[in-house]
Amino acid sequence: MVSRYTRGVVLNTDPAAPGARMGRPRSERARRAVLHAVDDLLVDVGYAAMTMKGIAERAGVGRQTVYRWWSTKAEILLEACLADAREELVVPPHADPAGDLLAYLTALTEFLTTSPPGLAYRALVGEAQHDPAVRELVHGADLLTESARGVLDRVRRSAPDMPETALSAAQLTGPVVTRILTTPAPLPEPLLEAHVASLLRAWGR
Amino acid sequence: MVSRYTRGVVLNTDPAAPGARMGRPRSERARRAVLHAVDDLLVDVGYAAMTMKGIAERAGVGRQTVYRWWSTKAEILLEACLADAREELVVPPHADPAGDLLAYLTALTEFLTTSPPGLAYRALVGEAQHDPAVRELVHGADLLTESARGVLDRVRRSAPDMPETALSAAQLTGPVVTRILTTPAPLPEPLLEAHVASLLRAWGR
Repeated sequence: MVSRYTRGVVLNTDPAAPGARMGRPRSERARRAVLHAVDDLLVDVGYAAMTMKGIAERAGVGRQTVYRWWSTKAEILLEACLADAREELVVPPHADPAGDLLAYLTALTEFLTTSPPGLAYRALVGEAQHDPAVRELVHGADLLTESARGVLDRVRRSAPDMPETALSAAQLTGPVVTRILTTPAPLPEPLLEAHVASLLRAWGR
Repeated sequence: MVSRYTRGVVLNTDPAAPGARMGRPRSERARRAVLHAVDDLLVDVGYAAMTMKGIAERAGVGRQTVYRWWSTKAEILLEACLADAREELVVPPHADPAGDLLAYLTALTEFLTTSPPGLAYRALVGEAQHDPAVRELVHGADLLTESARGVLDRVRRSAPDMPETALSAAQLTGPVVTRILTTPAPLPEPLLEAHVASLLRAWGR
């Protein structure tokens, strides 16, 4: 049983999961204040300097209120990311598969380069490379595969050679994400278009 | 003018670059000891806990010796990564493009999941998401594009639709790297094979 406040926001709706911990119903206003506070603090002080105390102060809530729902700053940050990713990375259906894929990749680039929750996700992926607890959170969410699933399901109908979603999502998102994480500039629009054309040839469209 | 000791190891051979700083010739033995020390310390204590002092002690050299060649632990770690990547990610020519691409992706998976310098590279990519100095180092090296260049140049001869290297390297490496950075397991061998088949269809082979 998941609180109506957490539904669609926590990444794992298993009632035994930490994010779904119950007790008393969440105060939606306090919860949103905390999620906004971590977005703000990420921009202002960065991930490393962020503390649960600082988050509570910025949100204007007690520290106990924060700890009632989350155990670590990484959990809060990931919940903020996922909620925003669900909004920012949902692409309305386009007339053709190329339009669908390009719109998703444009939104993904925007998310990871300019949106505070997207920058938060990059910070978490960074932490995940050396912090096992953060790694488990990031792995459990698999934000990239999950956010690509909708558009891939639509494209699959007319792309007979598209591999299973674990691979096709990686083929779609991996080049964009890797360039953003490891090089000075994201793939520009013409290369995103060339990438989409490649994918559709590969997938038998 | 680049010292014979740094040739093929520093990422930037511009004599004005920090890695190529002269003064007196490097002691090859001390240099290697420092590069091994950072690999060891990464495994033993992790990136965050590593210090220039600790690196000097582990290498059995004076701190001045370390600072003569490098300004930060990130610089040392990246030099260690690049030297090892050049050895571990060079793939001898195969009979066919699929063999070439699969051998490279298998080596890349191995490098990023089991090899200390590959784990060091992941740590640096992680740091790069919030530390501008590390970001500049990682971006300047572009290890993925550089390590893929050899195999891509061979495959290009028989793949008329392969896009420019900036994109084709991202298409080749991105799915593998992104899965390793963000999910619990790397792409397994059958999905690497499926990925290579996709790429060759996309590239008109």
